[in-house]
Amino acid sequence: MRVYLAGPDVFLPDPMARAALLTSVCAEYGLIGVSPLDTLAGEPAQWAAWPEALRIARRNEAHIASCDALVANLTPFRGPSADVGTVFEIGFMRALERPVFGWSNDARPFADRTRHFAGVCGAVDADGLLIEDFGLADNLMIEGAIIASGGAFFSRDCHAGERWVELDAFRQCLQAISSSM
Amino acid sequence: MRVYLAGPDVFLPDPMARAALLTSVCAEYGLIGVSPLDTLAGEPAQWAAWPEALRIARRNEAHIASCDALVANLTPFRGPSADVGTVFEIGFMRALERPVFGWSNDARPFADRTRHFAGVCGAVDADGLLIEDFGLADNLMIEGAIIASGGAFFSRDCHAGERWVELDAFRQCLQAISSSM
Repeated sequence: MRVYLAGPDVFLPDPMARAALLTSVCAEYGLIGVSPLDTLAGEPAQWAAWPEALRIARRNEAHIASCDALVANLTPFRGPSADVGTVFEIGFMRALERPVFGWSNDARPFADRTRHFAGVCGAVDADGLLIEDFGLADNLMIEGAIIASGGAFFSRDCHAGERWVELDAFRQCLQAISSSM
Repeated sequence: MRVYLAGPDVFLPDPMARAALLTSVCAEYGLIGVSPLDTLAGEPAQWAAWPEALRIARRNEAHIASCDALVANLTPFRGPSADVGTVFEIGFMRALERPVFGWSNDARPFADRTRHFAGVCGAVDADGLLIEDFGLADNLMIEGAIIASGGAFFSRDCHAGERWVELDAFRQCLQAISSSM
């Protein structure tokens, strides 16, 4: 079973080592981890002339479409929400009607994180914009997609220094996928 | 032609009035604007028993699937990137292979916004995580999808007080869709 590994892990200091680590953990659960950094078999020759960013985007779309499930690292990234590239990929996989799993190393409710970020206590931020508060882990489209797709979400809090290291919640996703095979 | 209006506009102080405004502007261009706040014709009766957040998520997915194109308000939202709910919806529409248009009231490059947010000048943030820098407006999956789908992205800078008011870039999206009909 091929599992696409969505997440801001590609921005870590040694992204290739991170991808190798995540795919090796997938293998422990009998899963083939597919990283955004993987080469794409049969990539069209004309893509070579494109700007790198567009080539990466199309390649990642193709990788997702080649997978049976998606596992997303939803640990908050530069703001109260997950990385937008990761969330794009969840939306893409959801439209393909395949299971989406999510994990995060921050277990605080989304509304708490957003209030902390905005420096407010109430229902709106300083601009008067509503703070979404449904008791979920992030924007409702994310958890809505995970649930509707038959996936699952796992989170845990960890020390700040372990935020981009800890993999227990990731392993919970893989265990859930492995159990459903 | 039905156009889904993705954006954090649903968090504005009077979201129904905002939706009415955006759909009335769509009508000027001969387009039917579909808001996330619209009711869903033929919504399954069993959804009534679901938690509101999940009902909203499924309803929005159904709205997107019923549209011919998507127009996303990508004005940065609580961080250097666009609202994650909006970006989820772009990914969803992209997988349906229909055109995605984006607009933003912040014309700064994504890398500049991210460095400003992170308080750094270099290639990485304080945690050592890479600052994506391809000269794009936001994460590459977003602009990659817009270009690959045959859509377009428009942005402009405006005064801080006009950030959630100004609609010139939105109108540019509608004009582009209207011209392609």
